[in-house]
Amino acid sequence: MIVVLKENPNPRQLENLIQWLKSLNLDVHISSGSQQTVLGLVGDTTSVDIDLVRALDIVADVKRIQEPYKKANRRFHPQDTIIQIAEGISIGGGNFQMIAGPCSVESPEQICEVAKAVKASGASILRGGAFKPRTSPYAFQGMHAEGIKLLLEAKAETGMPIITEIMDIGQLELFGEVDIIQVGARNMQNFELLKHLGRTGKPILLKRGLANTYQELLMSAEYIMSGGNEQIILCERGIRTFETFTRNTLDIAAVPVLKELSHLPVVIDPSHALGIARFVPTMAVAAVAAGCDGLMIEVHNDPPHAKCDGPQSIRPEAFDVLAKRVKAMRQLVTSLEG
Amino acid sequence: MIVVLKENPNPRQLENLIQWLKSLNLDVHISSGSQQTVLGLVGDTTSVDIDLVRALDIVADVKRIQEPYKKANRRFHPQDTIIQIAEGISIGGGNFQMIAGPCSVESPEQICEVAKAVKASGASILRGGAFKPRTSPYAFQGMHAEGIKLLLEAKAETGMPIITEIMDIGQLELFGEVDIIQVGARNMQNFELLKHLGRTGKPILLKRGLANTYQELLMSAEYIMSGGNEQIILCERGIRTFETFTRNTLDIAAVPVLKELSHLPVVIDPSHALGIARFVPTMAVAAVAAGCDGLMIEVHNDPPHAKCDGPQSIRPEAFDVLAKRVKAMRQLVTSLEG
Amino acid sequence: MIVVLKENPNPRQLENLIQWLKSLNLDVHISSGSQQTVLGLVGDTTSVDIDLVRALDIVADVKRIQEPYKKANRRFHPQDTIIQIAEGISIGGGNFQMIAGPCSVESPEQICEVAKAVKASGASILRGGAFKPRTSPYAFQGMHAEGIKLLLEAKAETGMPIITEIMDIGQLELFGEVDIIQVGARNMQNFELLKHLGRTGKPILLKRGLANTYQELLMSAEYIMSGGNEQIILCERGIRTFETFTRNTLDIAAVPVLKELSHLPVVIDPSHALGIARFVPTMAVAAVAAGCDGLMIEVHNDPPHAKCDGPQSIRPEAFDVLAKRVKAMRQLVTSLEG
Amino acid sequence: MIVVLKENPNPRQLENLIQWLKSLNLDVHISSGSQQTVLGLVGDTTSVDIDLVRALDIVADVKRIQEPYKKANRRFHPQDTIIQIAEGISIGGGNFQMIAGPCSVESPEQICEVAKAVKASGASILRGGAFKPRTSPYAFQGMHAEGIKLLLEAKAETGMPIITEIMDIGQLELFGEVDIIQVGARNMQNFELLKHLGRTGKPILLKRGLANTYQELLMSAEYIMSGGNEQIILCERGIRTFETFTRNTLDIAAVPVLKELSHLPVVIDPSHALGIARFVPTMAVAAVAAGCDGLMIEVHNDPPHAKCDGPQSIRPEAFDVLAKRVKAMRQLVTSLEG
Repeated sequence: MIVVLKENPNPRQLENLIQWLKSLNLDVHISSGSQQTVLGLVGDTTSVDIDLVRALDIVADVKRIQEPYKKANRRFHPQDTIIQIAEGISIGGGNFQMIAGPCSVESPEQICEVAKAVKASGASILRGGAFKPRTSPYAFQGMHAEGIKLLLEAKAETGMPIITEIMDIGQLELFGEVDIIQVGARNMQNFELLKHLGRTGKPILLKRGLANTYQELLMSAEYIMSGGNEQIILCERGIRTFETFTRNTLDIAAVPVLKELSHLPVVIDPSHALGIARFVPTMAVAAVAAGCDGLMIEVHNDPPHAKCDGPQSIRPEAFDVLAKRVKAMRQLVTSLEG
Repeated sequence: MIVVLKENPNPRQLENLIQWLKSLNLDVHISSGSQQTVLGLVGDTTSVDIDLVRALDIVADVKRIQEPYKKANRRFHPQDTIIQIAEGISIGGGNFQMIAGPCSVESPEQICEVAKAVKASGASILRGGAFKPRTSPYAFQGMHAEGIKLLLEAKAETGMPIITEIMDIGQLELFGEVDIIQVGARNMQNFELLKHLGRTGKPILLKRGLANTYQELLMSAEYIMSGGNEQIILCERGIRTFETFTRNTLDIAAVPVLKELSHLPVVIDPSHALGIARFVPTMAVAAVAAGCDGLMIEVHNDPPHAKCDGPQSIRPEAFDVLAKRVKAMRQLVTSLEG
Repeated sequence: MIVVLKENPNPRQLENLIQWLKSLNLDVHISSGSQQTVLGLVGDTTSVDIDLVRALDIVADVKRIQEPYKKANRRFHPQDTIIQIAEGISIGGGNFQMIAGPCSVESPEQICEVAKAVKASGASILRGGAFKPRTSPYAFQGMHAEGIKLLLEAKAETGMPIITEIMDIGQLELFGEVDIIQVGARNMQNFELLKHLGRTGKPILLKRGLANTYQELLMSAEYIMSGGNEQIILCERGIRTFETFTRNTLDIAAVPVLKELSHLPVVIDPSHALGIARFVPTMAVAAVAAGCDGLMIEVHNDPPHAKCDGPQSIRPEAFDVLAKRVKAMRQLVTSLEG
Repeated sequence: MIVVLKENPNPRQLENLIQWLKSLNLDVHISSGSQQTVLGLVGDTTSVDIDLVRALDIVADVKRIQEPYKKANRRFHPQDTIIQIAEGISIGGGNFQMIAGPCSVESPEQICEVAKAVKASGASILRGGAFKPRTSPYAFQGMHAEGIKLLLEAKAETGMPIITEIMDIGQLELFGEVDIIQVGARNMQNFELLKHLGRTGKPILLKRGLANTYQELLMSAEYIMSGGNEQIILCERGIRTFETFTRNTLDIAAVPVLKELSHLPVVIDPSHALGIARFVPTMAVAAVAAGCDGLMIEVHNDPPHAKCDGPQSIRPEAFDVLAKRVKAMRQLVTSLEG
């Protein structure tokens, strides 16, 4: 961390600042020029509150050099994290998984039909929403407990592990048999929820918020990890920009950047990012080319009658084509890396 | 709502669509051209799921003409909503209030000293965080129950009503004596929290999310209102843009736009928007000139030692100057409107 | 185009509006409901000024259904445009080209050394800046006429066609032997320049502006095309968002979207988008997976001493690896499409 | 400027770097910790190419402490710049001016009628576009030379100095009698145009680009100033964000921030920022409250028939009300500052 002082700092305040920084177990190196004095702080600055230092009278600016996250940081954990989802199904460290299923669980027939279809095409994890974050209070909000029950039936019938979204910590007791708990983009900085999830032993898929930076995503992962749960899957699902043709802008660079900054697996959700089904397969394949550890794809047996997000859902037949392309792409990516 | 059909729609599918729309109590007007057929839907389209219609095979595009919110909509509620906070203190409909206080409650001395100072300068409502949403799990998270206790002591001592932020519905029982419950920007779309708050009888100050549109803010207000609680204060606190000199970009146009779209009062928080204390007074005054119903200002007796957000907090003396300018500005605004 | 009228429009004004629209050779379909009257305009609405209609007293809103561009529109030109750059080198319609070279031309040795290296690795077109748009007037601005001379020497020596950026129409006379004229992101809406380029017979590579939409990019292409020059290559080079870790956000979805909306070839420039050399190869490969018609890659023989944009330039050896991966990726993409 | 080195930098490369920096007349202070070595550069770093340093093998990061602009920098020019537009009409340093007129010049009657009306209401400078940057090549592009002729007639008739936009340096000869040359948002980084304008002796109104930072705006001013022309008026006209209800987001904080960073006058154009006439007066008044040195307002005698930007133009009667409010606001702002 670099602390740039204002011109002619008060010597007593400067001395106080230096003593305080040393009390945090930091080495302080002073570089004094004719115009500018700069302090270089060496040591573990993770817990130094940068805003607090910046507010001091004698401080002109503070710049962080090291990342403010530790447990999610590849610097301190060089090996890829591999998360075991179920017998034979793990993600990260070269293990790639396809997560597929409808936006919402709607009926026993719907979820089972989709589950069987996506499994046959190569998906290994079943998605389906029971609690749905909808912008409008008048829109379908999901089947709640009944939705989770139907997901569990589909799990029993197909053997696929399941992932579904939690919206409030009060719902946690329903998630006992759920294999991966999803935190949606709008809850990425619901810090109370993150803290609670840090105390569960379950894999968490954490979606990047619509206007959140890579660092903020990793800080939210750090919230969960600092509670003891280190099984985090990061998910890029599109960010909000000025472009309105697609629902959001899929930031595929998140894959190589997050994998450099962190050891956690990175999954891409092109369905929510694009919001238009016909562009999903192309972007899914591009994300795989960029090295993502998994994809999350919305598949519906009857998109025009989906109770939510129909426009972005592809049909099982389209998913089958997509899955074949993804498989071919994975082979190429693996051979190029090998 | 306008439904634009693809060229040569399947006649049976078109007939089904029309029947379904009519079953929603909508009048359907068909306009057929040589290239394009357009359906005009007349009636209450609030509960029509636009995504669902857009996903239909024969539909090229759907455009909403009426707003998807009703209770928050000035069209159906032309009079300004006036919210009574305490005896003699109301907001909206020409009633302007200054909310001031520290970012976080830190000690009995701190909160009482700040409260007395801001009251003397003309603030009528005391703010102070007990639960703090911090990006880093290693940063100060607030004093929690103890913080609320200290706020209540400051309320008892000064007679000022208090506002403080809720981060999780599990904290609600601590808010019994709190006068206004704040929902922070990161929880603007925490829909479960909004639903719960809709069942309380307390005024809610709802902050706009960092990347949320006016319409999304009003839809979140609608969530609370549709639960029965119509005492909502909207708050603009800066949006995230490409400019990084200030923390966020304060969108002052939110004042006239939100007040046209809705009858709810609109408050501006320049402290969080700017993130730099020395720009807060100027922007506060500009927001008042734009017609806001209140300001929310961070004031700290010792900003360099504030436990959070020190750089954006002004000192009580600066607040006193600000309050005088705001008072003069309010007089001018009132005289120009009169 | 859909014109939504305000409630109870003045009948005379409505009649005038309808007559005027008919005078533009448009069919006007009126759909009157109890609350809302809507006009559906059928015909060629390209030249209707949407802002002008929106400003009318009786108009509540106007929504365009057809795109406002014609020559760039795939609807009116379903076949891919193929642009012949040189003998045996064309782009679009399944023809893929690698454009590579330094950000700026710096010396005869530098440009020739890089040109030979990238050609050996499979690049077919040489890039190199002679006129450099730099944010600071104190930064290196390019070698100007001398730079173009050196590019032409490299062209003579290697046989590679060359592309270089024009910044002002006054420079055009120097571009006689240049094979592709590049319009940079900051000049995408320099409409006078576009008009002039529309009168040349040269292929133009048009970069998307940092905050421009797909439609605006296509409208700028339309500017050039409406002048008679239809040889446009569209180029996505990153857009400006709130994320600052990478210089810009590479919007790979531009590939499938632009190729659906338009028949023009689409090239990706990951070097400028990312701004960090080590992420360029991964994103280049992902862009190819998405189906782009070409790549534009900055390569420098000595990036730390490049006079501009060194951090984003890769070395010839890294380009050689990249080119091999791109070749393998192209084979896969072609086989999947086949 | 702070240069952060990678761990264990090569000693020879480090020595080379230090020698090179010293050759630029910079003092170099080395701060070596157990993990990190930091160089503090003291002296005039304006012309150090930050990207070039960042690209060096041994460099992890570079952070600028001083601004990269000099002539536009208040640090080196503490007094407000005052620009004399005409006899008795200057801007900056407490001098406030209202610029008003139509988006485009359309006819002798239109421009003269509007000019007389806005002058009567208190505007001192007449605006009117002769060269119009339009997104569509099929939209009205302005009257060109004829438009400037009409503006000059209105100037002769009313005595008002005029401002009009230049789009290409080739148009400059037509600007001999124009009092202020406007550079539009889309040309803010048309560096060739800026360089040419730096050689004229005319006041330049430089609009901030739709996605440009404060620093980039000041760097563009620096381009003009470094050519010898220091009469620059900065203009904020809205930035592009995710919010689409208004055309752009008016960033009023640009006023206090730019006035702190620079000595140049700052003008606000709420018409283009909002794009909706009925919100213009409120935002104009708010901008004045924030301390801007002038306003630029679109006024049209018949907005529904304006040939461009009708929806954002107000009528002369509305301008008269606006001007009265602005006058009252200026009095308040002046009295508060006094």
